[in-house]
Amino acid sequence: MGYLHEGHLSLAALARERADAVVLSIFVNPTQFLAGEDLDRYPRDFERDAALCELADVDVIFHPATDEMYEAKRSVFVDEDSLSTGLCGSSRPGHFRGVLTVVAKLFNIVLPDVAVFGQKDAQQVRLIQRMAHDLNFPVEIVVGPIVRESDGLAMSSRNKFLSPDERKDALCLRSALMRVEALFAEGVRNVDVLRKAMREIFDSTPSATVDYIEIVDDKTLSPLVAIDRRALVVLAVRIGKTRLIDNSLLSA
Amino acid sequence: MGYLHEGHLSLAALARERADAVVLSIFVNPTQFLAGEDLDRYPRDFERDAALCELADVDVIFHPATDEMYEAKRSVFVDEDSLSTGLCGSSRPGHFRGVLTVVAKLFNIVLPDVAVFGQKDAQQVRLIQRMAHDLNFPVEIVVGPIVRESDGLAMSSRNKFLSPDERKDALCLRSALMRVEALFAEGVRNVDVLRKAMREIFDSTPSATVDYIEIVDDKTLSPLVAIDRRALVVLAVRIGKTRLIDNSLLSA
Repeated sequence: MGYLHEGHLSLAALARERADAVVLSIFVNPTQFLAGEDLDRYPRDFERDAALCELADVDVIFHPATDEMYEAKRSVFVDEDSLSTGLCGSSRPGHFRGVLTVVAKLFNIVLPDVAVFGQKDAQQVRLIQRMAHDLNFPVEIVVGPIVRESDGLAMSSRNKFLSPDERKDALCLRSALMRVEALFAEGVRNVDVLRKAMREIFDSTPSATVDYIEIVDDKTLSPLVAIDRRALVVLAVRIGKTRLIDNSLLSA
Repeated sequence: MGYLHEGHLSLAALARERADAVVLSIFVNPTQFLAGEDLDRYPRDFERDAALCELADVDVIFHPATDEMYEAKRSVFVDEDSLSTGLCGSSRPGHFRGVLTVVAKLFNIVLPDVAVFGQKDAQQVRLIQRMAHDLNFPVEIVVGPIVRESDGLAMSSRNKFLSPDERKDALCLRSALMRVEALFAEGVRNVDVLRKAMREIFDSTPSATVDYIEIVDDKTLSPLVAIDRRALVVLAVRIGKTRLIDNSLLSA
């Protein structure tokens, strides 16, 4: 969606290693925003993005106009019935229909051999992997790791909305994940205990409002009671008005 | 879906004119049959189909097993919200999700430059055209005309289910369409009048049960009150237990 940061550029670098030609899409996709969300104020700066793409050795920027991508009378969509129902799918109904439909369109327009997505959007990545598999898209999905600021905040185009105080408070997401990682390393497996430990951190952060704190099976995204398999700790927390997400993998 | 007849072979011939290599899929797709429909007794004869493909100069038969096409845990589907709601979409809820999803999969597996479908399945063809357009599949959709038996019955794999008496009664579909074409040629444009004329033909055919008789806009498939644009007369009629469809285009 553009307003590129080092997270995006790390994905371009992964693509550069894998492919003869690298195409980067910049499209603030309206269909994945719900009414009342931040579509209009989502940050955009194409000139800056283009300069960063040049430095990152990107061959093609695909930057379509909205009416090139969508006709008013469009009526075909890609839907997912299982992985998409919880987490961001609960808080943002219709969001993943918008994501999967635009990614299917991008796959068909660009016809990539390899497509690179970021682990920060963990649920989105798993949905795209499932779509590519279930619909037989001839593309290999590569997942790039989360890239963080030096103090641990996951990079996101939305971080620019944070006031200086909120920017400090936003570290609570990474703190909560590190707290769970530490407890897990000490042998704690009970999900209620781990979620409670995270909840305490958000409760003591005045600007934070939890959207969800979940520990789920890494493959099915179903909630776990105890961590007895590869698990994903996933957070969506509002800092002031800015909704941030972050996640961490725990290997049982 | 195989059990090939001259209608299918006419589509292979159209493909042969357009392409260097012709791939024909034979897959009785379970997801487009509803519970209680004729999935189990749908006719199959791969040896006969393979011999016909050889004669028709088909290069590749794509004949996957059901478990190659579908995993139990699949969860991604292609849905259409407008053209699919009426006609066969009303009588067969879920049918077109099954059709569009399998056609998306076939497109991604075969990667055809051109794909040929038959006008007999008029609603299906329009849905596939819309899907290819809305999801940007890099494929040209070609529509082959309805192929009929010498007495006018539209060719269909399901015609083999008809008893000799039902086979005679099945001509009522073509008779109804010809009656409308004649009235249209005489200047009749009122849809109620035209539908009533068709209804009379089915009412006088003991084995016929009407599923739907509609006259719709050829592009949007919305019902018309008067034929003031290109229209499609679409019929679904059960002859005994066998559901048959047929259609005719009227150009205003």
